[in-house]
Amino acid sequence: MLIVKKFGGTSVANKTRIFNVARRCVAEYKKGNDVIVVLSAMGKSTDELIEMAKEINPKPAKRELDMLMVTGEQISVSLMAMALDSLGVPAISLNAFQVAMHTTSAYGNARLKNIDTERIKNELENRKIVIITGFQGVDAENDFTTLGRGGSDTTAVALAAALHADACEIYTDVDGVYTADPRIVKNARKLDEITYDEMLDLASLGAGVLHNRSVEMAKKYGVQLVVRSSLNENEGTIVKESAKMERMLISGVAVDKDCARIAVIGLLDQPGVAFKLFNHLAHHNINVDVILQSIGRDGTKDISFTVAKDSLDDALAVLESHRETSLKCDKIDVDRDIAKISIVGAGMISNPGVAAKMFEAMYDANINIKMISTSEIRITVIIDQADVDRAAVAVHDKFGLGSPNT
Amino acid sequence: MLIVKKFGGTSVANKTRIFNVARRCVAEYKKGNDVIVVLSAMGKSTDELIEMAKEINPKPAKRELDMLMVTGEQISVSLMAMALDSLGVPAISLNAFQVAMHTTSAYGNARLKNIDTERIKNELENRKIVIITGFQGVDAENDFTTLGRGGSDTTAVALAAALHADACEIYTDVDGVYTADPRIVKNARKLDEITYDEMLDLASLGAGVLHNRSVEMAKKYGVQLVVRSSLNENEGTIVKESAKMERMLISGVAVDKDCARIAVIGLLDQPGVAFKLFNHLAHHNINVDVILQSIGRDGTKDISFTVAKDSLDDALAVLESHRETSLKCDKIDVDRDIAKISIVGAGMISNPGVAAKMFEAMYDANINIKMISTSEIRITVIIDQADVDRAAVAVHDKFGLGSPNT
Repeated sequence: MLIVKKFGGTSVANKTRIFNVARRCVAEYKKGNDVIVVLSAMGKSTDELIEMAKEINPKPAKRELDMLMVTGEQISVSLMAMALDSLGVPAISLNAFQVAMHTTSAYGNARLKNIDTERIKNELENRKIVIITGFQGVDAENDFTTLGRGGSDTTAVALAAALHADACEIYTDVDGVYTADPRIVKNARKLDEITYDEMLDLASLGAGVLHNRSVEMAKKYGVQLVVRSSLNENEGTIVKESAKMERMLISGVAVDKDCARIAVIGLLDQPGVAFKLFNHLAHHNINVDVILQSIGRDGTKDISFTVAKDSLDDALAVLESHRETSLKCDKIDVDRDIAKISIVGAGMISNPGVAAKMFEAMYDANINIKMISTSEIRITVIIDQADVDRAAVAVHDKFGLGSPNT
Repeated sequence: MLIVKKFGGTSVANKTRIFNVARRCVAEYKKGNDVIVVLSAMGKSTDELIEMAKEINPKPAKRELDMLMVTGEQISVSLMAMALDSLGVPAISLNAFQVAMHTTSAYGNARLKNIDTERIKNELENRKIVIITGFQGVDAENDFTTLGRGGSDTTAVALAAALHADACEIYTDVDGVYTADPRIVKNARKLDEITYDEMLDLASLGAGVLHNRSVEMAKKYGVQLVVRSSLNENEGTIVKESAKMERMLISGVAVDKDCARIAVIGLLDQPGVAFKLFNHLAHHNINVDVILQSIGRDGTKDISFTVAKDSLDDALAVLESHRETSLKCDKIDVDRDIAKISIVGAGMISNPGVAAKMFEAMYDANINIKMISTSEIRITVIIDQADVDRAAVAVHDKFGLGSPNT
């Protein structure tokens, strides 16, 4: 069997944890399995590198920022190879260029194009544990790229797909996917199984367990994922095409505090306005989330949307640069103190009244709703960030998601 | 004009120093010149990475240690690109694989084979300052290698040779090449010019200003070097084929404390013994320095030699592993507390009595000589490390090398 195991930064933050991971990999290897290990940078080291960069240049070129950041994973993979070696198991570390992990040139937010598997296969045939840098790639110019926050999950899934791995295990610091964030909602319950689609909505809505692109890719290539803890041997949550029916209306409540709202006010009410606005942002690789268009005053229209907090400055700069020419709006407002709360569940489709029930929970808790967005299996509302933890508990209770014994 | 500038780790140790270097490069660029900058890792970061490795595995695989160490230069080059960008000058950082800088596979001590200059030329044509990682390369398998301590000098000279640069400037924390280490010998004098051969002997003997392989390469390809300070605008020392005659018997006194002596005692007195011994060491890429063979007791012979301190453990391991089979010696002794002191000078060839004068200086200072080794333009003696600073002053004075005004 070929097993891909991905460990995040906290799992390799220091010597003790590196050896914990190493021993886990050795146990798998000694069963006779082939093992690929995908690692993130140690602890907070990516943040530290970004801080170093910003000290030198508050607006570093993205190409150079990626060149800097990729050193983080290279450090963790080489140390892991040394740890495995000291446990008597042959191992080799490979970075994105050695693999080679080809991506687009969108620095900071690149997409994987294809992976050369020859070197990996050779090393596995020599019965080595192969340790690969997550999060990073190389473009057609051989320049380093990164896949965006949490991109190591995507690296793991892509490797599992390309090598037809028998399992892809994503190790994290929680036991699996919960009905809500257990730090906020005390009686949140761990799910044994969840579908790709539900996970996709949870991931992209900020459940924080899996990177959304990794789930998209897993769905596309049919890679069955297991999300489990690196700290214990518990079973974890299986993510697959169709999960066993738990007769639950919704499978989880997701909270995302890492967002900000931009409102572009007083746009001309004519065709092509929304296209132009979002096309400008897309050209700068800025991902836009919830979008809401409303009628403004005097024959104008307003468009509001949310972006990740770290894209906010870029998005504002892009909008300002087109303000006088193609956008022609009255003003651009920003709200940094918002949060998203969403409920997700395949059961929603056939059950009317789910949205009303969610809004009722918010009303009961006296929480004001700023924006609403829905899809077939998801309802999202934007509220004040100060209210969001309370809202999560209220919604979780309203749908009876908690463990019965707490 | 194309100028290659190399800056060591202390020159890029923090934000202020990075900007000092950046401003210096900008000034060169604004004269209309093409500029290539070669950088070492920041401050003590290479040592810190090695320490990290040893904490995980006291004997890390050299392939993995190189994989770890090369992150150090990648960090400094990307930060330098950001600094230049913030000063309004376009810049791009390249690591060894992007260049590509091809080497042998001797991890930790690799030799440069060839450099692809296409990418560099393209970036220079786009009027970018090109910043390149010193010290590192990639082998035929695309694995990272390092060139050994001080290897960034070699990177700079190799680039200057491959690109037919008009100048190759090696920036350091002293004003140039001195007649002795100014920290030890107070009245040491800066040389305006020195020949490759003299510099070669000074470099390999521990003057510490230039990496010896870089001088070898400069001589081979006729690259004129300038060694100068990164802290001021002083002229520095020019290293070239024939220096102007200063009518000096010797040009400098070099001290090397980074060495240890191994004595292999009681070897069989038969042909091939020395060959086998040094062949074993060469196979493990261990550089041996001063070698001395003497007659031992009862028809045996003894061979003593010096190695760099960080090769000592490797060398002993190699010798022990062949002790019972091909070496068959009585015992292996180690002396860690030695130092080398050498005098170097092209004038030596035609002046007999130089060696005697040096030994007289040692005798006057009551310093015991343990080993002696000579070449055409160099005399080296091995003494106790505790005596070496005193010895340097004594020899420097004996040959009247000091500045007249101190």
